[in-house]
Amino acid sequence: MSVTFPKGFRANGVTAGLKPSGRPDLALLVADNAASVSGLLTDSLYPAAPVTLTLERLARGTTRGVLVNSGDANAGRGEAGVLDALTTTAAAAAGVGVDHEEILACSTGVIGGGFGADKIVEAMPALVHGLTEGGGTRFANAICTTDTVVKEASAEVGRFRIGACAKGAAMVEPRLNLATMLVFFTTDAPMDTPALRMLAKTALQPAFHQLTIDGCTSTNDTVLLLASGAAGGERVRTGDDDWSDLAKVMRELADSLAYQMAADAEGGTKVLLVDVVRAKSEAEARSIAKAIANSLLVKTAIFGSDPNPGRLVQAVGASKAEFDPTRTRIWLGDVLVSDAGVVPADYNREAAHAAVTEHDVYVRVDLGFGPGSARAIGCDLSYDYVKINAEYTT
Amino acid sequence: MSVTFPKGFRANGVTAGLKPSGRPDLALLVADNAASVSGLLTDSLYPAAPVTLTLERLARGTTRGVLVNSGDANAGRGEAGVLDALTTTAAAAAGVGVDHEEILACSTGVIGGGFGADKIVEAMPALVHGLTEGGGTRFANAICTTDTVVKEASAEVGRFRIGACAKGAAMVEPRLNLATMLVFFTTDAPMDTPALRMLAKTALQPAFHQLTIDGCTSTNDTVLLLASGAAGGERVRTGDDDWSDLAKVMRELADSLAYQMAADAEGGTKVLLVDVVRAKSEAEARSIAKAIANSLLVKTAIFGSDPNPGRLVQAVGASKAEFDPTRTRIWLGDVLVSDAGVVPADYNREAAHAAVTEHDVYVRVDLGFGPGSARAIGCDLSYDYVKINAEYTT
Repeated sequence: MSVTFPKGFRANGVTAGLKPSGRPDLALLVADNAASVSGLLTDSLYPAAPVTLTLERLARGTTRGVLVNSGDANAGRGEAGVLDALTTTAAAAAGVGVDHEEILACSTGVIGGGFGADKIVEAMPALVHGLTEGGGTRFANAICTTDTVVKEASAEVGRFRIGACAKGAAMVEPRLNLATMLVFFTTDAPMDTPALRMLAKTALQPAFHQLTIDGCTSTNDTVLLLASGAAGGERVRTGDDDWSDLAKVMRELADSLAYQMAADAEGGTKVLLVDVVRAKSEAEARSIAKAIANSLLVKTAIFGSDPNPGRLVQAVGASKAEFDPTRTRIWLGDVLVSDAGVVPADYNREAAHAAVTEHDVYVRVDLGFGPGSARAIGCDLSYDYVKINAEYTT
Repeated sequence: MSVTFPKGFRANGVTAGLKPSGRPDLALLVADNAASVSGLLTDSLYPAAPVTLTLERLARGTTRGVLVNSGDANAGRGEAGVLDALTTTAAAAAGVGVDHEEILACSTGVIGGGFGADKIVEAMPALVHGLTEGGGTRFANAICTTDTVVKEASAEVGRFRIGACAKGAAMVEPRLNLATMLVFFTTDAPMDTPALRMLAKTALQPAFHQLTIDGCTSTNDTVLLLASGAAGGERVRTGDDDWSDLAKVMRELADSLAYQMAADAEGGTKVLLVDVVRAKSEAEARSIAKAIANSLLVKTAIFGSDPNPGRLVQAVGASKAEFDPTRTRIWLGDVLVSDAGVVPADYNREAAHAAVTEHDVYVRVDLGFGPGSARAIGCDLSYDYVKINAEYTT
């Protein structure tokens, strides 16, 4: 049920015909009443039209819903893109019976294509008519592009419910301005916008900043968090017990969605989890973790189940981070494969090979340098990634 | 003849048995007399043992030669690596009859392997015995790893000669701290070390900083420039006419070697040439050019001969450089594919497809922002790059 698990939301997904495949490509999430909303959006200097529109409308602090299409990114289209984002959200607003500024927009698919705004407007009656409290999975399915599975997560936190879904299998290394990754979180907790924004920044941003599929930050990445308040009771405030409990569980759900996206990466066969500890700062830890997770030589070695400690040494050494190379140790699974830049002559090759043969491959770097730590969540680089991206315009 | 084209140099290459393939893997370049020398070495925080040794010995300002092995990087080995670099250069020095500190060292191959210093010492008599004034190509051949062709360049500048050779097909994005790219330049111009260092910095560093095969800066990258003075006559000084002529031609030869390495990239089928003009600075121009050349989505699109302007917009937008997105234009070949982030609806798809089908694919970005310009020289990402790096430990 994902985003419709919390009370106060309805959703649907239909086929508008934007995708040549005929798979579902238009989705709508609606809040029964004005919901508090917070968003994290790409820091690309070429944001897509729906990103710009959503950014403006987020300033209101509340929303009645979000219209999402897959199959076309509505990016790289200038004024035509803006007009189409306005037209399609206006059609959704009219269908739902709310003001047009109360509907946000997200798009994912080909950049610089010919956006099918007319197809979206034509499909609107069916989309609105099918909105139900059990429609979360239809929504989560219709937002997918090359994703091979629907990515959902949900939890109960005391009297509150949280629902979430995501899509993203390539052009993924979110840098939320604070990411074409699209992520939607809903909760029925009663919460004002400032408390919700702090929740997005505290619980969601760091989770998605862990993720890199191919090092390519999209024009369309968007994370939206909506709170309907339908659970009732006292309003949740930043830092109170309910807020902290929601933050903790939202981070777990966000971690789960980030992992699900890496696991469903285009052509991916394995997930790479890189933990860097005792770095100068969290930012430095993240930069080293990302340097490993984005290294073509590390990604191909993992695809080939080759332990290859030398490529880990290469990636850390070239990471441009500040650390003391004489104090740095690197593990592949439980095997110490580099101590101060030296690959131990007698390292356990069998255990290292076993570690890199698993679906989840763990690399751990201890810099012995400072208080910062971070994880990167990546994937391997396979023939199929090349095939998918060489043969199709995405 | 490459490095033995200038007077005053002899070279050779033999098979010492470091490579399982039995191909040549040990090379020696010798100057008949003390040659002025300047080096550009990797900025990796885990430099290989021969890099550390060469850096120390470059402080002397002159050298009698350089011993190079392929098949093992002598990196990630700590004290054992240092000892082996000392032992093997001492053996070469003894064979040539010079002081052991007069011989520099370079290695390329597997990182963290078991270095065959004994095999190198055993092969030394044959290596030294075969040193000849026509041995440059044997030298250039023996330094190769996954390279499929020998990379050489040479020129005459007035009364002087310049010779050069290079190897490098992966783990290549040199950041010379003044980069497993190895490059050797020789000249017979008479020149003191300061003038030679300025030549390396002015003519060679910017040329190799253009290059990226896979975004992976090596532990072993080295560029060495040796001047024998054997042409005789007045010493060339920084900035004089002879120096400027040498600088201009060396830059052309270095550009040629960088192009040759990109063209021989592991699995590469095409060369990608990205020119960024009117950026805030040269550094900003280079960062945008590299962002495009290193993008997996751009590299796979070029492999598939897919114009895909959207991926160029994505890469520029996410480049983290400072520019005005409303003034930026992007060309693929001669076709304007993005104007201010907008892909023109009527752009010439046929011409763009033709441009991306060529062996040399040109991308040009005009930021209209400042005085900085830079080129990146890259390549496509093919099934074979994945195969080579997934199946073999390198």
